[in-house]
Amino acid sequence: MTLPFIFHSQTEDGLVFDGEQLNVTLKTEKIMFDSVHVRCEPDNEEYLFEMSPCDNAGELQLWSAQFAANKDRDVTHYVFKLVQGKQQFWLDGRGVHKRMPAKEFHFKLNTQSQPPSWVQQQVFYQIFPDRFATSQDETTIRHAYAKYDPKAMVKSWGEAVGSHHNTGAREFFGGDLKGVEQNLDYLAELGVTALYFNPLFTAPSNHKYDTTDYFNIDPMFGTNEQFARLCEKVRGQQMKIVLDAVFNHTSVHHPWFDINKEGDGAYDYPQSQYRDYYFFEGDSNKYIGWKGIDSLPVLNFENEQVRDYIYQSEQAVIKHWLNPPYSVDGWRFDVIHMLGEGEGAKNNAYYVEAFRQATKSVNSNAYVLGEHFFEATQWLQGGQEDGAMNYYGFAHPVRALIANQDIMYDPIEINALEFKEWLDEARAKIPFANQLSQLNQLDSHDTARFLTLLKGDEQKMRLALALLMTYVGTPCIYYGSEVGLEGGLDPDNRRCFPWEQLSDSEWLRFYQRWIEIRKQFKSLQSGSILWLHCDEQTMVYARQLREETIVVAFNLSAQDVEVTLPLWQLGVDAQNLYQIWEGSGKVAYSGHFSVKISALSCDMWQVK
Amino acid sequence: MTLPFIFHSQTEDGLVFDGEQLNVTLKTEKIMFDSVHVRCEPDNEEYLFEMSPCDNAGELQLWSAQFAANKDRDVTHYVFKLVQGKQQFWLDGRGVHKRMPAKEFHFKLNTQSQPPSWVQQQVFYQIFPDRFATSQDETTIRHAYAKYDPKAMVKSWGEAVGSHHNTGAREFFGGDLKGVEQNLDYLAELGVTALYFNPLFTAPSNHKYDTTDYFNIDPMFGTNEQFARLCEKVRGQQMKIVLDAVFNHTSVHHPWFDINKEGDGAYDYPQSQYRDYYFFEGDSNKYIGWKGIDSLPVLNFENEQVRDYIYQSEQAVIKHWLNPPYSVDGWRFDVIHMLGEGEGAKNNAYYVEAFRQATKSVNSNAYVLGEHFFEATQWLQGGQEDGAMNYYGFAHPVRALIANQDIMYDPIEINALEFKEWLDEARAKIPFANQLSQLNQLDSHDTARFLTLLKGDEQKMRLALALLMTYVGTPCIYYGSEVGLEGGLDPDNRRCFPWEQLSDSEWLRFYQRWIEIRKQFKSLQSGSILWLHCDEQTMVYARQLREETIVVAFNLSAQDVEVTLPLWQLGVDAQNLYQIWEGSGKVAYSGHFSVKISALSCDMWQVK
Repeated sequence: MTLPFIFHSQTEDGLVFDGEQLNVTLKTEKIMFDSVHVRCEPDNEEYLFEMSPCDNAGELQLWSAQFAANKDRDVTHYVFKLVQGKQQFWLDGRGVHKRMPAKEFHFKLNTQSQPPSWVQQQVFYQIFPDRFATSQDETTIRHAYAKYDPKAMVKSWGEAVGSHHNTGAREFFGGDLKGVEQNLDYLAELGVTALYFNPLFTAPSNHKYDTTDYFNIDPMFGTNEQFARLCEKVRGQQMKIVLDAVFNHTSVHHPWFDINKEGDGAYDYPQSQYRDYYFFEGDSNKYIGWKGIDSLPVLNFENEQVRDYIYQSEQAVIKHWLNPPYSVDGWRFDVIHMLGEGEGAKNNAYYVEAFRQATKSVNSNAYVLGEHFFEATQWLQGGQEDGAMNYYGFAHPVRALIANQDIMYDPIEINALEFKEWLDEARAKIPFANQLSQLNQLDSHDTARFLTLLKGDEQKMRLALALLMTYVGTPCIYYGSEVGLEGGLDPDNRRCFPWEQLSDSEWLRFYQRWIEIRKQFKSLQSGSILWLHCDEQTMVYARQLREETIVVAFNLSAQDVEVTLPLWQLGVDAQNLYQIWEGSGKVAYSGHFSVKISALSCDMWQVK
Repeated sequence: MTLPFIFHSQTEDGLVFDGEQLNVTLKTEKIMFDSVHVRCEPDNEEYLFEMSPCDNAGELQLWSAQFAANKDRDVTHYVFKLVQGKQQFWLDGRGVHKRMPAKEFHFKLNTQSQPPSWVQQQVFYQIFPDRFATSQDETTIRHAYAKYDPKAMVKSWGEAVGSHHNTGAREFFGGDLKGVEQNLDYLAELGVTALYFNPLFTAPSNHKYDTTDYFNIDPMFGTNEQFARLCEKVRGQQMKIVLDAVFNHTSVHHPWFDINKEGDGAYDYPQSQYRDYYFFEGDSNKYIGWKGIDSLPVLNFENEQVRDYIYQSEQAVIKHWLNPPYSVDGWRFDVIHMLGEGEGAKNNAYYVEAFRQATKSVNSNAYVLGEHFFEATQWLQGGQEDGAMNYYGFAHPVRALIANQDIMYDPIEINALEFKEWLDEARAKIPFANQLSQLNQLDSHDTARFLTLLKGDEQKMRLALALLMTYVGTPCIYYGSEVGLEGGLDPDNRRCFPWEQLSDSEWLRFYQRWIEIRKQFKSLQSGSILWLHCDEQTMVYARQLREETIVVAFNLSAQDVEVTLPLWQLGVDAQNLYQIWEGSGKVAYSGHFSVKISALSCDMWQVK
């Protein structure tokens, strides 16, 4: 049975909250429904509000209703019920169903906590500081780390990285803040608008996820003054900065822990004032390490001093870097779901909320970004994180569809229908504003690079990039991808940026054009998503915001295909499609539109 | 693509918790998997434990693994990941999928809070006291209510009930506790083992959801002494008693509210010591009524005196009736999801947990049952309710499938595949022990009777009853259904029990036999469920526990159908099927079994 066309946009086109009431609009095809209602649960019990026909949009009927937002909690859920003849149809965040959908998929609005609107307008760029760019400054400071780790070594820019994770963390290539500063013009030319830095604070390893000093930039990268200057220059380019917050654990070399017993740290010294900063087993020197890794002792947030230091006091780390002269624009919280009290993640929600509040108390417009390798739904209801590193709702399904690998590098096969279902399900569970504020990536410092997963297949890489740039969520490019940098498993995914390849990089021009498109069309940044077609190998969606409609079509098969798109579902009066990449092609259509999509390629139009 | 057969029982057959570790067993068909893992999230991060082949069961391979239960929270989630060639398969509470399922569907065990095991062994019987049986005692007491409501009237047993809800609540038929007592033998003969009473405490209406005195049985029904005696007699029949707890609101005639201004109640008297027991708007006489109904003012649980009175003190209502001489076995909490602070349901979870703790503090084996007309997943994770009136996961889908109506009496059409998906989804979201402790009903005092919804179609009624008696969850029969009592919308669904129809009721013998079967087979009470077949009109499932396997087949179409059942999936060595209703038919099978199921009927076998 074909389900009727029913659609609800959670942008201002379909949902307006006036501080008390939600005004919702529904679009349906023009058939006779016996009743149309919006359903909500103000006190956990069902209330049905009748919707009135209010307008037409192209071939579509518009219906509207208003109802009060929940007052006893921050999130208001709602869903639509339509009855026609012997059947009923429900619209939730995934689509149309023949029965009432489970509550987690109802549309939802968090009326109290909204992500900052600037996030969705960005194209992020992730910088792994030791490998992005070197100013070729004095390298002596790097040798400082030899005192912790006699095996540490300094390599020349572009040399092959070590093949093993353990040696990988001990080799240094000399990337630094001055290197970043020298290449800000390059980044501006590329078009990215926000920088996410892997950790910058003092730490023995090259990745710096083992902090020894939360208040100082690692001397390998530069000084606090240099960082302040960099922040100013970045702001001068109208760019944003997000830093990595590694608060789940510290280095064993942090003075609080002090594994070398040079001071009064907690290790092997039960009387230490810092003993309770970590989880020691009685008076022994056994302690909890992150994922059982001894070198990363887990911090104890039950301890008020830890809470004060990290987020609670006026001088807390979280607040310090949000304040001048740095005034960074947000935090990316490392493994934030694992943080809490003890071996598990006890009271995790409490701490994530507290991190949010501490952040927003300094800058209500700061971005609270959580790292989650798997499903992050529970942290994304508004009151905890603005967005997550969207592995679960973007990177995983794209990897599965295009690279046929899961995040553990196991084989996986899904078709486009299953891909769409995965995306829709993941998206539907979180408020729309948070969907737009997800940080979408194809790869990162924690995964193999996508092009390498594809064994260099450029056609497939282009499909993946088109998804990154047109799908719901804020795109983030991992440094070097824009020049086709490859790399397998960590640490191979952290190769030095190949600056010498810049001039003749076709990838670079391709990325530049995509970034330009992403920034040109507000509907790609903030619009609703409407699927116009999906079969096993082909999928077409539209992004819509106000008067702007973009249609994106993907053919994943090795054959050209022809699909007929029901463009009447867009509810626009326009009858022309303008090809975006070709820049000139104009096609007229009426209601339906038949189009040929070449094998393994993507096509894209503006409807106007 | 056909998915491989993979199954996990959450009974003792597949899951054993030793207080620290979960020992899990997986059954698969014998194909070469490249890897088999169980996945859990001890600190919200993925851990994969390899499973070892450990045994065979019939044609199936068994795999086992063990992992530690979560320590930082009560619920441990887990799911299975199998890789084979280019594909991966995941098993969650619903079935097999080609990608990692969303977290709400992972298997779950609440290691701290378990429902009492006696619940799943019962067949419940719901008694609406004014209508079940009358002892023809003095009726004068009924007239006491005339003082509140001059329109109250006393009717003769069996007279037609009023046609409208408002008059409906004011007419009395004289059912009473002595009437119940006189018919205990009848109930024992019917075979039911637990009684759920609609409210018994003093209240003006016939339904008594408008309490005026939580500590006294309504004089219409009898005295506290009579109730104590009834409880003793019920215990003498090895039966359990569950009472209705109406704590969201009181009557306006409750002395705390005192709408008639006879004492010092809160209504229109801002200085009243009870003013803060309700939600008044300032000094006005405006207050919050349940669902906006003025006659049912909502209680304010923010007020410590209300908390003390209802559940917190040693003399609290909840504890009072769980103690001798009554020692009732559980509470059914009315509209419990709506209860809290103010107009919404603020801090609802806190109060539901507190009700549970108060209940269990008197009797750790008491049943905590919540009323929820819609999805109750969030109250059923173990720490709040043992079970819910299972409208969402049983009554709604059965109504939709067989009676083509939803709970609002709107038309709905779903086929057996959609029905199965609904059941599986609802079940998968809650721990297995709570699935078994759900109170499944076809109808209740709040819905039209199922036979009436079916317009008297007895074939379809038999199908529905077979689902009630064989599906996961504890069955509850609404008084009178066992003799074919009909009734439409409230109050027509509350007709007097037609005692005169008892002797020649074929329905009665049919119900008796079903109840006997339910009690005979432990697998129906506590077993896992395994779907052997499902298409649009036919469905077959097995219930399994230890050595016992029952197979139940439903044909919903108007034609006879023949289906082939993959009985090898049961993993049993037995090769014979014994028909249960015929009582003698024995059929041999080998691996597969082809069977004809008559139109609109159900068939049932024991495998041994």
